[in-house]
Amino acid sequence: MNQHNANAPTVSYSSLHRFVVEALRRVGVSDADARVTADVLATTDAWGIFTHGTKNVRGYLRRLKAGGLLAAGRPRLAAEGPAWGIVDGASALGMVTSVFAMQTAIRKARTCGIGYVGVRNSCHFGAAGYYAWLTAREGLIGLSMANDIPSVAAPGSRGGITGSNPISYAVPAGRHPPLLLDMSTATVAGGKVYAARTRGERIPDTWLIGADGKPTTDPSGYPDVGALQPAAGHKGYGIALLIETLSGLLSGAAFTWRVGTWMWDDGTKPTDHGAAFLAIDTNAIMPAAEFARRMEALVDEIHAAPRADGVDRLFVPGEMEWERHARAMQVGIQLPPDVVTSLEEAAKMTGLNAADLFG
Amino acid sequence: MNQHNANAPTVSYSSLHRFVVEALRRVGVSDADARVTADVLATTDAWGIFTHGTKNVRGYLRRLKAGGLLAAGRPRLAAEGPAWGIVDGASALGMVTSVFAMQTAIRKARTCGIGYVGVRNSCHFGAAGYYAWLTAREGLIGLSMANDIPSVAAPGSRGGITGSNPISYAVPAGRHPPLLLDMSTATVAGGKVYAARTRGERIPDTWLIGADGKPTTDPSGYPDVGALQPAAGHKGYGIALLIETLSGLLSGAAFTWRVGTWMWDDGTKPTDHGAAFLAIDTNAIMPAAEFARRMEALVDEIHAAPRADGVDRLFVPGEMEWERHARAMQVGIQLPPDVVTSLEEAAKMTGLNAADLFG
Repeated sequence: MNQHNANAPTVSYSSLHRFVVEALRRVGVSDADARVTADVLATTDAWGIFTHGTKNVRGYLRRLKAGGLLAAGRPRLAAEGPAWGIVDGASALGMVTSVFAMQTAIRKARTCGIGYVGVRNSCHFGAAGYYAWLTAREGLIGLSMANDIPSVAAPGSRGGITGSNPISYAVPAGRHPPLLLDMSTATVAGGKVYAARTRGERIPDTWLIGADGKPTTDPSGYPDVGALQPAAGHKGYGIALLIETLSGLLSGAAFTWRVGTWMWDDGTKPTDHGAAFLAIDTNAIMPAAEFARRMEALVDEIHAAPRADGVDRLFVPGEMEWERHARAMQVGIQLPPDVVTSLEEAAKMTGLNAADLFG
Repeated sequence: MNQHNANAPTVSYSSLHRFVVEALRRVGVSDADARVTADVLATTDAWGIFTHGTKNVRGYLRRLKAGGLLAAGRPRLAAEGPAWGIVDGASALGMVTSVFAMQTAIRKARTCGIGYVGVRNSCHFGAAGYYAWLTAREGLIGLSMANDIPSVAAPGSRGGITGSNPISYAVPAGRHPPLLLDMSTATVAGGKVYAARTRGERIPDTWLIGADGKPTTDPSGYPDVGALQPAAGHKGYGIALLIETLSGLLSGAAFTWRVGTWMWDDGTKPTDHGAAFLAIDTNAIMPAAEFARRMEALVDEIHAAPRADGVDRLFVPGEMEWERHARAMQVGIQLPPDVVTSLEEAAKMTGLNAADLFG
């Protein structure tokens, strides 16, 4: 993902952003909501996380047209206390609801030091990392997470027990870019298993369980049989249940099998995804300069630490993504073929001309 | 750990608790602080987590005698806001400071919905799970975590970059025992590597890196060369850095190599461990009965889910520990030989008679 590929078309961030705004506006999304959504998805592509970026516009358009997502849906703060809030997403785009929710968490944190906001009636929110970063950009520590329909096993289960339940955090780090981790609680993304299946390859026995619930190296049944394995076994499973609790159980959202599949289900039905956002205002707790100095010392220490034979650099979380992001802003984003295909279909769905995008 | 062993001596929870209280009082710890510490350590043994229970009394006694831990140290709330606090542990026992800090987080959460408390000038706090459970016992969601001197690699590093940085959470679950996860961010506990070394056995190549920074199956150099591998690679490493940030950087505690080794270092010096505690008052957010009903539905669903061939049960986090705890309270705690040896030395250090405990 971080290698240049001469065959991949390059688009500028601003062209990609404009395309997403225009496509969403054509199905009735307001200019403001379309811009928020385009910010999330184009930034995600600029980080090189193409599985969660503009590739999914097509799927969101399908649901917006069918009514499972409401183009005019307005997320609202359904309940709140000094340091918490519950947001009802009203079946608006998950990106719109999630930015609103994280902004609410930031506001709570600015008053109280920390803020928790749970979200219900949302949908797929793209990359969790965007919302964590939004928080770090304003000088706070941010955490974001969401549930999803089960696709990941528990130790000993025959099928999915939790969603791939992503969790992300971002921490401002002074003169360094923010620390930014965005991970699923499965061993690998389902897309990697699917790609191996498509290529007819075997996979490591830590990725998937088969129809009997045992680890398998054969991806040919995926995703119809078996399930992904949790990252680090009971640890990934345990973290996934914490995410399920904070995102789904406590927010009043659907949880586990009650969540709709945003990509495949009947597009007319809301999916009722849950999500959770936390912000911590470090400035309330420690002078900003001191926190920055300490974070810089941590990052500098890691950069200077002894490396294994043949290893050029040690990275802190997000460092690779920020380097891709900087290059994307300079020379454009090289979109993989599956993203191009998906954007072409999104163009067809909205009467846009994809050729304008890819030149 | 969860099997009965005819050779292991069985002690009652109350005898073990009394022994710890008496040993700590003999080196000047107040009755109240000794009882808090004994609650933490004996409960940890009752859960079957013997690496973090009364086995470590000996090490705490050594530091209390040498002055690195202060028997009369009083943790205090050094700074606070509506939903946050920073506790200065004043080199008191880590268990005493951590209970004080979590009680502060609970108080903040009861007012604001959520509370964060960072801790500095602390020491080893035993099992993170105790403090999370303390919170769940009062009907709130609890999270606890701590940093430690580096022993775990980052992807590509030649040595330790982060501590084994444990994280724990507990969630009240209605008629079920609370969900309770307590995990380190390393693949395995160092004790497992050390045990393999003692037995002259090879280890899986996911546990350790050797002197060259590459995975090794040879534990013979541990712990002097190499480092543990992070759980799930960059995921465990990333979570460890979040824990380091919330426990060490933001609290004003020592971080990474600045932390003292509580077990091996000069016992006269404070270790300045950091820790972080979060509490979320679910009752502020959702009626208690509704949250309980939802958590029960989640646990029931997992218990009823299809299992892999040959698997009898699916567990939720903490379920094994609660079953061990129930048995321990009924028939006593069967202490492994290394715990017995350690308690015998603790008895010698304080002029107690270990035979009274095991007789």
